[in-house]
Amino acid sequence: MFEARIAHLRHTMEAKNLESIALLPGPSLFFLTGLSFHLLERPIVGFFGTHHKPLFIVPELERGKVENCPLEADVISYGEDQASRLEAFDSAGEKLRLEGTRIGIEPLGMRAFELWLLEGANPGAKFIPADDTVSGLRLTKDEAEVEAMRMAVHVAETALRQTVSQVQVGMMEREIASELVVQLLRAGSESEIPFNPIVSSGPNSAIVHATPSDRKLKVGDMLMIDFGARVHGYISDITRTFAIGEIDNEMSKVYDVVMQANEAGKNAVRVGVKCADVDRATRSVIEESGYGEYFLHRTGHGIGLEGHEGPYISGDNQLPLTEGMTFTVEPGLYLANRGGVRIEDNVVVTSEGIDCLTSYPRELQVIAA
Amino acid sequence: MFEARIAHLRHTMEAKNLESIALLPGPSLFFLTGLSFHLLERPIVGFFGTHHKPLFIVPELERGKVENCPLEADVISYGEDQASRLEAFDSAGEKLRLEGTRIGIEPLGMRAFELWLLEGANPGAKFIPADDTVSGLRLTKDEAEVEAMRMAVHVAETALRQTVSQVQVGMMEREIASELVVQLLRAGSESEIPFNPIVSSGPNSAIVHATPSDRKLKVGDMLMIDFGARVHGYISDITRTFAIGEIDNEMSKVYDVVMQANEAGKNAVRVGVKCADVDRATRSVIEESGYGEYFLHRTGHGIGLEGHEGPYISGDNQLPLTEGMTFTVEPGLYLANRGGVRIEDNVVVTSEGIDCLTSYPRELQVIAA
Repeated sequence: MFEARIAHLRHTMEAKNLESIALLPGPSLFFLTGLSFHLLERPIVGFFGTHHKPLFIVPELERGKVENCPLEADVISYGEDQASRLEAFDSAGEKLRLEGTRIGIEPLGMRAFELWLLEGANPGAKFIPADDTVSGLRLTKDEAEVEAMRMAVHVAETALRQTVSQVQVGMMEREIASELVVQLLRAGSESEIPFNPIVSSGPNSAIVHATPSDRKLKVGDMLMIDFGARVHGYISDITRTFAIGEIDNEMSKVYDVVMQANEAGKNAVRVGVKCADVDRATRSVIEESGYGEYFLHRTGHGIGLEGHEGPYISGDNQLPLTEGMTFTVEPGLYLANRGGVRIEDNVVVTSEGIDCLTSYPRELQVIAA
Repeated sequence: MFEARIAHLRHTMEAKNLESIALLPGPSLFFLTGLSFHLLERPIVGFFGTHHKPLFIVPELERGKVENCPLEADVISYGEDQASRLEAFDSAGEKLRLEGTRIGIEPLGMRAFELWLLEGANPGAKFIPADDTVSGLRLTKDEAEVEAMRMAVHVAETALRQTVSQVQVGMMEREIASELVVQLLRAGSESEIPFNPIVSSGPNSAIVHATPSDRKLKVGDMLMIDFGARVHGYISDITRTFAIGEIDNEMSKVYDVVMQANEAGKNAVRVGVKCADVDRATRSVIEESGYGEYFLHRTGHGIGLEGHEGPYISGDNQLPLTEGMTFTVEPGLYLANRGGVRIEDNVVVTSEGIDCLTSYPRELQVIAA
């Protein structure tokens, strides 16, 4: 599987005129090799070239991990001193003849730390953004990948049910977030969950990416929960918004608008439709309701090994949907200092149209009252 | 508190001849402002200058978070289209007059993505590694910070006790890792734990940074558990290694050597002693035992808001210890394809010498037998 993925990458690199690609630990490296590392203060770089087998620069203490992996690869390792580290980068550059070449990198994954080491070791090399080259390979998912995501959705929905049944007025957002993580792990998520859950209540729910705080739930609050599970490396990413007891009429209305927008977005999904058209579908519903200015973000993003990856479901993305693409549909409305509503589903594009992985009810649930 | 920290930063910047410092979301930004963000595909940069108040470039959807923070700061926000994003970087550069200046960055925290945006918007600006400037402020901890870490150690040790009591022959490393995370959260850790726990057994325990696998525990295994908790943003980082039933004589001997090295390292800690001398103290014990070549890493690293930060306890670090420094002492021995032992404590340098925050027994515990 990894050999085939690397072969596919080589093919794409040739088309882009890239001699090599340098990747740090992260989802793309995992996708290509199955290898994962903690990304800390010791540099780790994997090189993939059109004319050489993969080569890794790793600290001595990570050598075993590369040697034990099923992939045929070269390893250059370094010790704990600075000189040995620089030497490793020089050796890699010489071995792969990187001087003056075009080296693709992922700008979101590459750190200045490793970029400067690579620049220092390879005079005249040009570093080219190659996110699309690498993540393009990950844009459509095969059956096994979709199956892992289906399980990640199931785990997340199980955990959400367990958590919601324990929510009470007076609980802190932080407490709910902790309980949710416990339930995710109990339900079978890998311990490296995709992101720290967002649990935001009352006015905090109007902050799109709020950090769970000490704020205690009150009657009349909206309670927004945005979180996911991870299974076999693949993630789910779900949002549901609840009412804590009775909420005011306007928030009820806002809720209905978001629910309709979510539905409209999913209805627009089929092979050949552009990402921008799916965004337009949710946005039209919201704009017609008069709340357009409170929809502060795009409709969704791809999911897979990462929480945020292509395809981005935004107004300026003309990419047509193809079978096997997996992404979120998550319209939201945020009334500053009052409250917010977001309803987020996870979907797969199929030959028939759409397979919605999420099934947790979308109708407004009044809880803890 | 944040105002004082920023004032301190300005002072350090002047000494280093830096006009400004640009930080991405992460521990340093949190230390200076209390602000935390998910670091995703939308750029977020905080600027700190000697002659201006802090300025943040954030996506529109994060504007509320900055405006609601107690700090006096400017915000430039951008929408979901590429043009508005570039404009935000240009505006920030103009407002702060960054063109041609020296801008400090953290090479380990800065991504090529934001670095290229900053370079594009500020022709002639020079980007200078400033990790020591920023993290230098975080090198010694005040009482409140140490207190948070003491709680993080307490939470971790409670979770370890709970987890170890459930370990049985036949359990998978992955299962133990999940249970450990559940117990960390139950014991009071923040849900964003400092790193994914390492739970490695048998031959896997000889891999320094192993990822928990499906391998099942067997009698005769070493079981290494390396993990931490987070309280008020501050972390603990503890390793203990257990015997699953009877282990062979050599692994027993290796265990004793590591325990003695751990003790020797802690005994060497006091104000004025160099980091390299603490490293030497553990290393000497191990070298005298004849196992020197199996000690694959330095003795320890600083801890605080991050798992790995200064002071690094390595042979080439001549930095003298000062009161309030907090770090790990974690010698380890790794016999490839057989097993490894690491014993990691968390310590604070005090005026009297050392305060060891960890108290979990270090003597070899035989469990699950």
